[in-house]
Amino acid sequence: MSVDPTRRRLLAGLAGAALAGASRIAWGDEAEAPGGAGDPAAADAVDPTRRPGAPPSALGARSPFESPRRMPAWGRISATPLQALHGTLTPADLHFERHHGGVPAIDPARHELLLHGLVDTPRKLRVADLLRLPSVTRTGFIECSGNLRIDAGPETTPQLLCGLTSQSEWTGVSLATLLREVGVRPGASWLLAEGSDAAVMTRSIPIEKAMDDAIVAYAQNGEAIRPEQGYPMRLFLPGWEGNTNVKWLRRIELSDRPFMTREETAKYTEPVRGGRARIFSWTMDARSIITTPAFPEHVEPGWREIRGLAWSGRGRIVRVEVSVDGGRRWEEARLVGPVLPKAHTRFAWPWRHAGGGAELTSRATDETGYVQPTRRQLIDERGVGSLPYHLNPIASWLVEADGRVLYKAEPWS
Amino acid sequence: MSVDPTRRRLLAGLAGAALAGASRIAWGDEAEAPGGAGDPAAADAVDPTRRPGAPPSALGARSPFESPRRMPAWGRISATPLQALHGTLTPADLHFERHHGGVPAIDPARHELLLHGLVDTPRKLRVADLLRLPSVTRTGFIECSGNLRIDAGPETTPQLLCGLTSQSEWTGVSLATLLREVGVRPGASWLLAEGSDAAVMTRSIPIEKAMDDAIVAYAQNGEAIRPEQGYPMRLFLPGWEGNTNVKWLRRIELSDRPFMTREETAKYTEPVRGGRARIFSWTMDARSIITTPAFPEHVEPGWREIRGLAWSGRGRIVRVEVSVDGGRRWEEARLVGPVLPKAHTRFAWPWRHAGGGAELTSRATDETGYVQPTRRQLIDERGVGSLPYHLNPIASWLVEADGRVLYKAEPWS
Repeated sequence: MSVDPTRRRLLAGLAGAALAGASRIAWGDEAEAPGGAGDPAAADAVDPTRRPGAPPSALGARSPFESPRRMPAWGRISATPLQALHGTLTPADLHFERHHGGVPAIDPARHELLLHGLVDTPRKLRVADLLRLPSVTRTGFIECSGNLRIDAGPETTPQLLCGLTSQSEWTGVSLATLLREVGVRPGASWLLAEGSDAAVMTRSIPIEKAMDDAIVAYAQNGEAIRPEQGYPMRLFLPGWEGNTNVKWLRRIELSDRPFMTREETAKYTEPVRGGRARIFSWTMDARSIITTPAFPEHVEPGWREIRGLAWSGRGRIVRVEVSVDGGRRWEEARLVGPVLPKAHTRFAWPWRHAGGGAELTSRATDETGYVQPTRRQLIDERGVGSLPYHLNPIASWLVEADGRVLYKAEPWS
Repeated sequence: MSVDPTRRRLLAGLAGAALAGASRIAWGDEAEAPGGAGDPAAADAVDPTRRPGAPPSALGARSPFESPRRMPAWGRISATPLQALHGTLTPADLHFERHHGGVPAIDPARHELLLHGLVDTPRKLRVADLLRLPSVTRTGFIECSGNLRIDAGPETTPQLLCGLTSQSEWTGVSLATLLREVGVRPGASWLLAEGSDAAVMTRSIPIEKAMDDAIVAYAQNGEAIRPEQGYPMRLFLPGWEGNTNVKWLRRIELSDRPFMTREETAKYTEPVRGGRARIFSWTMDARSIITTPAFPEHVEPGWREIRGLAWSGRGRIVRVEVSVDGGRRWEEARLVGPVLPKAHTRFAWPWRHAGGGAELTSRATDETGYVQPTRRQLIDERGVGSLPYHLNPIASWLVEADGRVLYKAEPWS
């Protein structure tokens, strides 16, 4: 990694007493540590080199000083704490949830995936069968198509605003491999994917997507998929709206037409200008969100890195711009680490906060040239009438003169 | 992903009753499911679509049918269950452990990293300071240099044989950035990295590695580092032996010479031919291991994918060869998913097991042209006298006529 020489001496601009007193070597035995001591009951005021630590364990656990949590809300939803995360991955136990009939308890030895309809040879597959077949591994995000809290107030975290997106390394079998095994019959142009949850979630998927990059996944971040994410198997459709990635997948039926299920007719459609609605709007548009600083942080004057996530269902993120004055002047952010197609991409920009107020904003551009729209552009295009599907507006955080950071709440009108 | 047309109809060769009976659609309500029912108490014999599932939760948990575990063994060590994993990542709670004084309990608000010695401006940094600085994210493995159980018997899993390697996405601050901040004085050519565990782990690191790709990491797989992995901050030296990646990092001292600590003189050196020993042998050599099939699996005749992991501390894996006859004939395996430098790389090869015996073997080659050695080559080079540091032999699994898979145990002599 190369560091811009103009960024030298970033520490010199940092506020805080922690940087002083380097001539005195004292390890954690200060009577009062600056910065707060966390949970006093768990605090270790003793020099940790002076006593043996804990033995190895069969399963690790988080430090008692770290407690990231999903936020169960809005019925059958829980959101990922984006503001607590670093890098690009989401720990499996913090992956957002959206389910329509609760999380089923499934015995993998009893679970079967049926492939049938316009195929030469219908088949039932268990996880054990999938495990023997050629595997594929791909890192990408899954985002709920309803990932915007349009009525958010100033005290809104990134998690509450748009925490229904998470990223994992998914492993499974290419759906193209499975379809080749059963033999796709002439005329088959759509398939139905059906889950075995109490909602019997069903969505129609065009055969082109199935043959392109769809995966029947059994693993997430190195291990078996978690129950809320579709254990023991789910569909992973890179870049497509969350609920097409059918969890607890039990049936794939090939047909010559879409199935027009409830989840794609009564729901998961969006109004557009002119009193009409669009359907089968699968791909998630490019988006970004600053995850730090954000509510409920306080910022001090000095250097700090503004960081966030950007992603697009259409391919790679090629540019993220950051503004600290509400969009009058934009600066190009650095893309940190891997820049994968249809994947969360970390961006960062070094900011020297001189004090006073600021408005922090980010804007993503993907490799198709698509630029993340403003709230106003979206309202003009879509109206204000219906459920917030596929809304990806530029969002702002207001830094107050006293250092508080608040979401820039505006009415959706 | 493209599938070799010669691999068509893989399912046709699969054994097992699960593929039959596709004309009857019955979801988990069979009186007796083929393949075993797992834990009867947790088994869900009721069609999961017939009753509501569990509500969203603040933290997810594994399915009761999945119980991957580290194996605490050999004193202060626990090993990663490589045979239970998919893709390339290791879940944080399954990352191997090696510590010399136990896992310390550290309050991050009290923990400080001191940078001093041959620097212009000594400084102390807390996690909060690191979080404001430019971040870097990199995925890679960490492997203990003593990652071979040389006395392993036939009933040895991949975990027990060589489970002291794990892979994570690490995020933190480039050590080069920190050194630039404090100003490296002329003549500084080494640094001491010191941990705040009860062993006060110390290692000497040449400044070239520090300025190249070293990271002071505070995050692992998207969240704060776990306590066993160095919370709240550790050194990450891509490709270098585990214990140079000092955990619970509290001090970096620059000097004009190595510090010759106990951990690099009395330990972590290897005997070589001629009665001598080598020191500062930091880089982990290229290696591979088949993770499935492996003990304690049973294999049935038919198609299945042989899968494993390969990695090198010197760069990318460029080739993995697989043999099913103990190395007489080698086949080139497919590299699955991302092939990153100094990172676990998944390989796979489709095997049609005709029944009878077999000997499954893999051999890795990295981008420097280095080829993973045989056991015999290593013994000839190193002798048999001392601790098993930097031993990366080709390993074999024996498939017995009855389908049992056993480790091919041989004396280290």
